[in-house]
Amino acid sequence: MSLPLFDRFLAPVDAAAPFDDIALIQAMFDFEAALARAQAAAGMIPAVSAGAIASVCKAELYDLDALAAASTRAGSLAIPLVKELTHTVSLYSAEASAVVHKGSTSQDVQDTAMALCTRRSLDALDAVLARLIASLLDLAEQHADTPMLARTLMQPAQVTSFGLKVLNWTAPLVRCRTRLRDAASRGLALQLGGAIGTQAGLGLHAGAVSRHMADALGLALPASPWHTQRDEWLRVAMEAGVLAGCLGKIGTDLALMAQVEVGELSEPAAPGRGGSSAMPHKRNPVGALVALAVAQRTPHRVAALLGAMGQQHERGLGTWQAELAEWPGLFIGVHASALALADVFAAPDVRPDRMRRNIDALHGLVFAEPAAALLAPALGKAGAHTLLEQLSGDAARDGHPLEGLMLAAVQADPALRKAVDAAAVKRVFDPQVALAAARRQFDERLPALRAA
Amino acid sequence: MSLPLFDRFLAPVDAAAPFDDIALIQAMFDFEAALARAQAAAGMIPAVSAGAIASVCKAELYDLDALAAASTRAGSLAIPLVKELTHTVSLYSAEASAVVHKGSTSQDVQDTAMALCTRRSLDALDAVLARLIASLLDLAEQHADTPMLARTLMQPAQVTSFGLKVLNWTAPLVRCRTRLRDAASRGLALQLGGAIGTQAGLGLHAGAVSRHMADALGLALPASPWHTQRDEWLRVAMEAGVLAGCLGKIGTDLALMAQVEVGELSEPAAPGRGGSSAMPHKRNPVGALVALAVAQRTPHRVAALLGAMGQQHERGLGTWQAELAEWPGLFIGVHASALALADVFAAPDVRPDRMRRNIDALHGLVFAEPAAALLAPALGKAGAHTLLEQLSGDAARDGHPLEGLMLAAVQADPALRKAVDAAAVKRVFDPQVALAAARRQFDERLPALRAA
Amino acid sequence: MSLPLFDRFLAPVDAAAPFDDIALIQAMFDFEAALARAQAAAGMIPAVSAGAIASVCKAELYDLDALAAASTRAGSLAIPLVKELTHTVSLYSAEASAVVHKGSTSQDVQDTAMALCTRRSLDALDAVLARLIASLLDLAEQHADTPMLARTLMQPAQVTSFGLKVLNWTAPLVRCRTRLRDAASRGLALQLGGAIGTQAGLGLHAGAVSRHMADALGLALPASPWHTQRDEWLRVAMEAGVLAGCLGKIGTDLALMAQVEVGELSEPAAPGRGGSSAMPHKRNPVGALVALAVAQRTPHRVAALLGAMGQQHERGLGTWQAELAEWPGLFIGVHASALALADVFAAPDVRPDRMRRNIDALHGLVFAEPAAALLAPALGKAGAHTLLEQLSGDAARDGHPLEGLMLAAVQADPALRKAVDAAAVKRVFDPQVALAAARRQFDERLPALRAA
Amino acid sequence: MSLPLFDRFLAPVDAAAPFDDIALIQAMFDFEAALARAQAAAGMIPAVSAGAIASVCKAELYDLDALAAASTRAGSLAIPLVKELTHTVSLYSAEASAVVHKGSTSQDVQDTAMALCTRRSLDALDAVLARLIASLLDLAEQHADTPMLARTLMQPAQVTSFGLKVLNWTAPLVRCRTRLRDAASRGLALQLGGAIGTQAGLGLHAGAVSRHMADALGLALPASPWHTQRDEWLRVAMEAGVLAGCLGKIGTDLALMAQVEVGELSEPAAPGRGGSSAMPHKRNPVGALVALAVAQRTPHRVAALLGAMGQQHERGLGTWQAELAEWPGLFIGVHASALALADVFAAPDVRPDRMRRNIDALHGLVFAEPAAALLAPALGKAGAHTLLEQLSGDAARDGHPLEGLMLAAVQADPALRKAVDAAAVKRVFDPQVALAAARRQFDERLPALRAA
Repeated sequence: MSLPLFDRFLAPVDAAAPFDDIALIQAMFDFEAALARAQAAAGMIPAVSAGAIASVCKAELYDLDALAAASTRAGSLAIPLVKELTHTVSLYSAEASAVVHKGSTSQDVQDTAMALCTRRSLDALDAVLARLIASLLDLAEQHADTPMLARTLMQPAQVTSFGLKVLNWTAPLVRCRTRLRDAASRGLALQLGGAIGTQAGLGLHAGAVSRHMADALGLALPASPWHTQRDEWLRVAMEAGVLAGCLGKIGTDLALMAQVEVGELSEPAAPGRGGSSAMPHKRNPVGALVALAVAQRTPHRVAALLGAMGQQHERGLGTWQAELAEWPGLFIGVHASALALADVFAAPDVRPDRMRRNIDALHGLVFAEPAAALLAPALGKAGAHTLLEQLSGDAARDGHPLEGLMLAAVQADPALRKAVDAAAVKRVFDPQVALAAARRQFDERLPALRAA
Repeated sequence: MSLPLFDRFLAPVDAAAPFDDIALIQAMFDFEAALARAQAAAGMIPAVSAGAIASVCKAELYDLDALAAASTRAGSLAIPLVKELTHTVSLYSAEASAVVHKGSTSQDVQDTAMALCTRRSLDALDAVLARLIASLLDLAEQHADTPMLARTLMQPAQVTSFGLKVLNWTAPLVRCRTRLRDAASRGLALQLGGAIGTQAGLGLHAGAVSRHMADALGLALPASPWHTQRDEWLRVAMEAGVLAGCLGKIGTDLALMAQVEVGELSEPAAPGRGGSSAMPHKRNPVGALVALAVAQRTPHRVAALLGAMGQQHERGLGTWQAELAEWPGLFIGVHASALALADVFAAPDVRPDRMRRNIDALHGLVFAEPAAALLAPALGKAGAHTLLEQLSGDAARDGHPLEGLMLAAVQADPALRKAVDAAAVKRVFDPQVALAAARRQFDERLPALRAA
Repeated sequence: MSLPLFDRFLAPVDAAAPFDDIALIQAMFDFEAALARAQAAAGMIPAVSAGAIASVCKAELYDLDALAAASTRAGSLAIPLVKELTHTVSLYSAEASAVVHKGSTSQDVQDTAMALCTRRSLDALDAVLARLIASLLDLAEQHADTPMLARTLMQPAQVTSFGLKVLNWTAPLVRCRTRLRDAASRGLALQLGGAIGTQAGLGLHAGAVSRHMADALGLALPASPWHTQRDEWLRVAMEAGVLAGCLGKIGTDLALMAQVEVGELSEPAAPGRGGSSAMPHKRNPVGALVALAVAQRTPHRVAALLGAMGQQHERGLGTWQAELAEWPGLFIGVHASALALADVFAAPDVRPDRMRRNIDALHGLVFAEPAAALLAPALGKAGAHTLLEQLSGDAARDGHPLEGLMLAAVQADPALRKAVDAAAVKRVFDPQVALAAARRQFDERLPALRAA
Repeated sequence: MSLPLFDRFLAPVDAAAPFDDIALIQAMFDFEAALARAQAAAGMIPAVSAGAIASVCKAELYDLDALAAASTRAGSLAIPLVKELTHTVSLYSAEASAVVHKGSTSQDVQDTAMALCTRRSLDALDAVLARLIASLLDLAEQHADTPMLARTLMQPAQVTSFGLKVLNWTAPLVRCRTRLRDAASRGLALQLGGAIGTQAGLGLHAGAVSRHMADALGLALPASPWHTQRDEWLRVAMEAGVLAGCLGKIGTDLALMAQVEVGELSEPAAPGRGGSSAMPHKRNPVGALVALAVAQRTPHRVAALLGAMGQQHERGLGTWQAELAEWPGLFIGVHASALALADVFAAPDVRPDRMRRNIDALHGLVFAEPAAALLAPALGKAGAHTLLEQLSGDAARDGHPLEGLMLAAVQADPALRKAVDAAAVKRVFDPQVALAAARRQFDERLPALRAA
């Protein structure tokens, strides 16, 4: 694993592996093999040469540490790699060694390799997202009628359902999956421009070779080389950034709900997971931890990538190299975040009792608004509001349920008594009734999310 | 103009106006008017009430500074605005005043208003981009056969055409226009969720009211309220960020080419434009200045927006407010950048003579690679390379043209003399021949860009 | 107020005023007046000319909007300002008008003006911090013995005191005040370099004029002009960034403690402050809101400023202009954050009862670690730990106090009964006893903080 | 090397080594050893136990990959490390194993270890800076009288000396060294707070143990544990950020001067360094590349660290972990940047001839301002300016030297001929004369920089 210690702490092997040194270097060899084969297919080089080249395009044949060390000096990773590859091919065929890397340039190799690794990373991420979404939709359905507090500005507002809350978490993930695929289908593209992006070294074969390579490598065929035109490439990063934000939003809510004082939702308990031997009550929200840490770091990576877009002329100085170095961490991070939440929601510990208790603890105050609406026909909007304000103040101060205070007030006023039905008052204060609107929205939206 | 002094310095009025205080506040009133009309259309409130409300939804009727001052205290801008609106409506109709803002919440007003202002900003930006793209495509066509140095890592590499360079600048802008429109068509959406996003206050009319409002305001109808699900909204910002990067790339190249020592491309001269009274030779690249400054600032705004995605529960504390404050500057900036470059490329000062002189000053060294290829059949790849390396060293040291040195070397060696044609050598060193590959790419790509 | 609407919403007038358009432009005039006077004092220009210049260096004499509009075109704000000033002076004295702005350059004016405005902003901020620190130290002393839960990873850990928590909030603010003053004493410096930073236009008077101006304007005298050497200047911004982070940390804790389910600390109630007419229980933490929003935005401004440091050659293109535009918002933000928290802690609503209740609700589990330590001599470290783990599991599952379970276990085991004193068990579970360590630290640290 | 491939490409081994996995883990063991020894010295534990613990605090005894793998699951790196250490100690002494890590917490270990590694990184960086500064000061002295163009907004302005330009690069580095040391002397501090930062587990020995440890480890003794008060720690990062900016400014100028068309300064030529076998004229500025890439990335790391300051309560969730992961890259980057430039300036290729040629190519236009000043006494300020503007226009258009045009104009006008001395005109256009002001500043500032 070629990830620094404290990055590893946030990212499990599955998330980091697609960008591991060996994976990246193999992807560079995959480029060289595909280039040779495509040129053979186009008649540019003999098929036997292509075969000789491709047969040694295997990372395990080379000393990766030596390659990495040479790269610092050369100002490029592809230069030592191509040199070693050429040397190795020459051991078998001088003719083949003369056409290694033909018509290509360092950036072609490295950009394409990065696209290949990103492709694998996103494929794996997509599967994780599918799993997470499925868990969340199941969870949402189970709790479509579980009332809980909706909170605005971190204060209780009114009553919603846990099911709708979960649906709200899920919908962006469904969108992210689609948008990420779209962006990847355009942005993860073959790079093949040659020294200055004109494909001069490929002559009239440029089109055929490009198409063949893109097909073989499973990458998009770009409208043109994109050495210093990074927009489609960056859009893939932007989508990863948005996804990290969506996962971070879930992590935020999860961390807040998992507070012992709130206690509505906890991460699964498992041996060695977020525990503390000394404090058995402690179940640290380590899934939320990862989602939050990634959401914290990701915007800065996105900004670093955007900031590197001003790549000078036909190949950037400093900008492109900064971009390459920033790129993997972004995808490793968002992958780790999705994995962490998928683990959490594979077996979440939901506590409808605590959700209900948190509503009840507010003495009915969260129903003050519909309560006022109930009285408005009789008292006018302003009058109803004034009365409820006064009753709510009493309830908050003394801890009496607002429902009782309101019933008493209705009874005490003959006009109100006539106009307002006690059963209607009861309904106003019933959490199950209160979540009708949430249920309506839930039912309307679920099918589309299930279908996606 | 409600933009701080040094922001104004970077942004002309056209760019800032869509988000001016008055524009934002009018957009909030537009929301309230559209809400009332939609509720009337749905039969929720009397048409006459809707009329009464809509008739006073005009920013010029209110004291904007007082509204802004009250907002700090209230923790929301919509609260004082709705209060003032209700009061004003009540002067005409008590009944109508009772249904002002019905079923809606502060965030509904502010998010929708911001979407409306962004809509106007993007419409204007689209027109600027269209103008810039048209200028660039014309410029590209004029210079499809103008040879110039391609530069990698800020050093001369080989020969390309200025036309292809301009085409490379243009293609991302064409893509950005499309993608920005796509993102806006989804992300600039009506916000109408009510207190906690359940549309409880709209009851069964929620769907009809939402559709009516979205239509009337020219905004997308979202799958659901998006109080704390900001992904589609953020995607619009991401696209603006990518566009700023693409424009910044042009600004970078422009600033580099406009250096007096390079002198290949300058900004138009105009009275009072980037001049210096003391130094008449000075033509400061003020268009590039704006594009670069915006490209410098934009990634940080994008990051700030992404960083605010972790909005807690059903309405964020600090996060949403930070997002709102960061939002306009992003769009004002990218708009200003596009305007600045549109001005530059309305009348760019292109110097093909300097482009040619910069090629010639390299004594043919940029042709060393094809020159070696020409000799390779006779000398082998390695032998040809060694010879060219030696000749290039001589050329670089003594300032002799490599072409002459190579011709002499060919003449001096009987085998070479026989194998290598002098005319072929001449072609290798001809910049016009060298840009054949650039021309091929140019011809292939131009039609699609023209069509877009 | 020249701040966009949604920035104003986060920043009260006091925070924004030092960088208001009029303040910035007046500061530019202050530079010109000080320059003229210093040159007169040095004998470079006649005193009467200096007087004539200084007498019209008053922002209210000029059309600020026209100046701002001209700046976009000129690529500089100082150019139109100096032009207007020269014209105005010439109405009184042709001789004086010939020496306006003598030996200076646009960047001299704008950088110095920004330093002056920052000076005023920081002076005001310092007073706010003094007030906030005083409130916090008082609060800390009042609660030096108030037990509350310490929380790690957002889960209850052990018992600390609210006083120590407040002290922990305060200490960084005390440091920030000192460091900010230090950084400002070096970084808020006169800029006077002339066209290319060599002070060529001041000749041998350069030293004397610089000293005189720095004195008169209350700015540091820098070791040299700093047109493109921004390190000392940036350090002031870095400190503001750190302060925003320290205030944001307080805002985070405040928002968490103010959650109704936690209920340990609320913002002061005041008419129109963070309220909701419909929900009288709602007291939105609007102070925390501002501190959090600023903490969210500030890192990105700091990054933008750092990113602009690569200013080219002797004056930057795009970089310097981006820096100027980013600068004020950073200081306005941190100022607003400090003001918001100073308001909160002028009258915080502390609830020791809820702090205690939150401890008690954990059934003594937070004392499991010292409880195990008490049994370790008798059972060995491992044995004690195993027993406590088991008892804690029982307590967590059944809601029985761990203290009782442990007493029972001690009683049930003759060996333990002999070794462990019941009073000692009681002490282990006493929150007041538990905060002894917190108290020790509190007493050691308070004097230094009071003294600062 | 535990750095991802493309990070390694930017950072040589020297820069990355202080934060390598093995270094970090050894630093964690150093903490545990120092803790045990300090507790023995304070009489808290037997000296023999401390010895037993310290004797196995050697990273090479443990399976580092297993530790890293366990950390992801445990949500902490220290937990598996302490577990393994305790187990290993227990093989020798049960008594000693009972006091491993006594009174400490995971964050104590990890923060202190990071401080230790940062200490080593900064010591190495300081030596590199000393070397770079020495090279730059020598270079500056050699070129104190070498005239070159000063450039503002990337356009030629007037004449300065290369020596002063180099001095301007150097002064911030001298300041950075001092400030970085200051910040490190406070911010690289022992972390020893125990579970919740109260040092409860150390009882009355807390002070003695802390002092002893800080001394032994060569770290600052903080005023208090700083688990969630990161200001002093962050200030070290801020200084690294500022330094990266200062180095990036040099990289910017270097890259611009190394352009072939400018050709004033190139990086040293060395086999395998920034070369291109095909293009022998190509000497890629790989030192500038690194400095620019680091300057591009660093602001975002700084922002990520600032953004993580809002650490919740007594230990952060997500925030602290994000900070730890971001931290090393910042220091590795700035270290790599300093190394890259130290290499460049060990043997820079300075071309005074090209500097002079670039001045001469402007036909004297850069002297238009002093030329106008020379004529002003005779023609008035406005008249002189108008004449020069006209002459400059002619010079720019026709490529005639302004000096000749001015001499002709003086000769042609009897009044001017009388007032203006030809020798004075000559002096105005003499680059050596023009750099007098630069020389004055140079002489004033050099001694202090040499002394530092």
